[in-house]
Order: sequence, then C-alpha cells, then structure tokens
Amino acid sequence: MRILLIHADYLKYHVRDKTKFAEKIEEEMKKGSFDESLVVFTAVEKEDEKNPDGIIDEAVQEIKKIKKKVGAENIVIYPYAHLSSSLASPDAAVDILKSLESKLKSEGLKVSRVPFGWYKSFEISCKGHPLSELSRNIKVKTKKIKEESIES
Amino acid sequence: MRILLIHADYLKYHVRDKTKFAEKIEEEMKKGSFDESLVVFTAVEKEDEKNPDGIIDEAVQEIKKIKKKVGAENIVIYPYAHLSSSLASPDAAVDILKSLESKLKSEGLKVSRVPFGWYKSFEISCKGHPLSELSRNIKVKTKKIKEESIES
Ligand SMILES: [Mg+2]
Repeated sequence: MRILLIHADYLKYHVRDKTKFAEKIEEEMKKGSFDESLVVFTAVEKEDEKNPDGIIDEAVQEIKKIKKKVGAENIVIYPYAHLSSSLASPDAAVDILKSLESKLKSEGLKVSRVPFGWYKSFEISCKGHPLSELSRNIKVKTKKIKEESIES
Repeated sequence: MRILLIHADYLKYHVRDKTKFAEKIEEEMKKGSFDESLVVFTAVEKEDEKNPDGIIDEAVQEIKKIKKKVGAENIVIYPYAHLSSSLASPDAAVDILKSLESKLKSEGLKVSRVPFGWYKSFEISCKGHPLSELSRNIKVKTKKIKEESIES
C-alpha cells in the first residue's frame, strides 16, 4: 500500500462519471467537503491482498501517528491509483479501503472515505508546513524487524 | 521520470520553509497562480541521469500530446518527489526540470515551473473529467521498440 498524506485546510470533491470499477454509493457519498483534514491518498497494491489485515493494521498505526503529529481534526481516505504501478484488484481494493475506514473509526477517529472507481472533481489546499506532505510505503513488518526496531 | 498530470481550473502556490535542497530563486518565483493549466507533478528518477536528453524529449512529447487532448492553456511543472522511491540527485533533478521547462517553451508553449526543494502551500482544483488525472512512467524508448511500433 502506498499512501500520500496531505494536511489540508480543506478538501472538497464531487463525483462525475463512473469508471467500470465504480463502487455502488448512496447519494450522500456523491460529494463531500472537509476542513482541517489529513487527506490520505491511497493506492492498494497487489501485494496487500496476501495479508490485508496486517496491511490495514500497519496503515492504521501510521495514519494515527501522523494525524497526532500534525494535529488534524479529520481523516479522509481518498483512493488514488496513480501512486502505484502494481495495483490490487478493484474488489480487493474496495474491501481494504472500507476496512481501513472502519478500523480507524473503531479507534474513535473522525473518518470519511471518498468513493472508489469514480472520476471526481476535487479541490484541496495543502498547508505547506514541513509535515504537510508525507508519503509512506506500507508493508507488513515481520516479527524480526519489529524486535530490532524496539531494541535500537 | 514519473509524472502525474492534472488538468486544473487553477493552481496557486506559495513557498514556505526551505529544505536543504532548495534551489536559489528570484522573488517572482516565490508564489504563483495559474488558471486553466495542465499541472505536471514530476519526480525525476535516478535512472533519468543516464540519459537526461532522451528522457526530456520523451516527456516533452507526452506532455504536448496530453495538453492538446485536454485543451489546457498553460503548463505548470511542479516538482513532486512523492511519486517515486528512486529519486535522482537534487542537482540532477533541478537541471532536468529546468531543461524540461526550456524545451517546452522552445516549442512555443506557455510554461511555468514551481521551485524545487521548498516546502510550499498550494491549492489546486482538478476538473474531474476522465482525462483530468493521468500518470505516466517516462522511459527512453529504444530504437528497436520505435521501429516495432512504426511497423505495427
Ligand atoms: Mg478556493
């Protein structure tokens, strides 16, 4: 999973045409407007299908850490295929994005998710401080690496 | 070179803090505002240092083609390291971005370039039509591939 995190004054979006992978959505998901948000542009990768729960856990930890650091009020998950050239299948991607949303919500955070597979117009304002644009390559840490990083 | 091309109603930016790789810039480059633009977020990659001229030629052709297709008025080159995990050295990146700018200008296009190595606040509005977000992995085509594609 590759994510690009933007600390934004605002994000607004509006769905336009469907792609052939458009998820079915309710009326209320067709547009959105969010202030003071950490926008998490997310590409779910083929590799992530092997261990979705592990990847989601890692992503939740990383997103929580960065949200706290920058002091954002909301989290917005925004599907973004352009961040990777090795994408998961659309079905797997939607499942993983939905689980990421619920997992973050279950931690008591304010989370919204922008629909997958739709062309969208959007406006964003990036704050510009040193932590307002970060990217991460999310991998499942093996036990060994975890222990090493605790020791160091 | 990896590029993400956004057909935008507008892009505005303002430099904030310098990174240690900040290019020296004149006052007028510290902020910018562009309407009806094709914004080319660009990551110059290590691989590109082997044949900068070849890469720049490929990028120019691709950008011209997409600009024409979407009908944008301006081109804005925006350095964007987050698109690749194999980046060129900062010096090489700035040289290549500057050459890309001049090469596009020499083709009679209206081109602006956003400074490299500065934290920046920015606002962008993506139009949302099917061609308003495209990404390309720019590689130098070998002669063999060129010939094959002419034959096919
Ligand atoms: Mg505005």
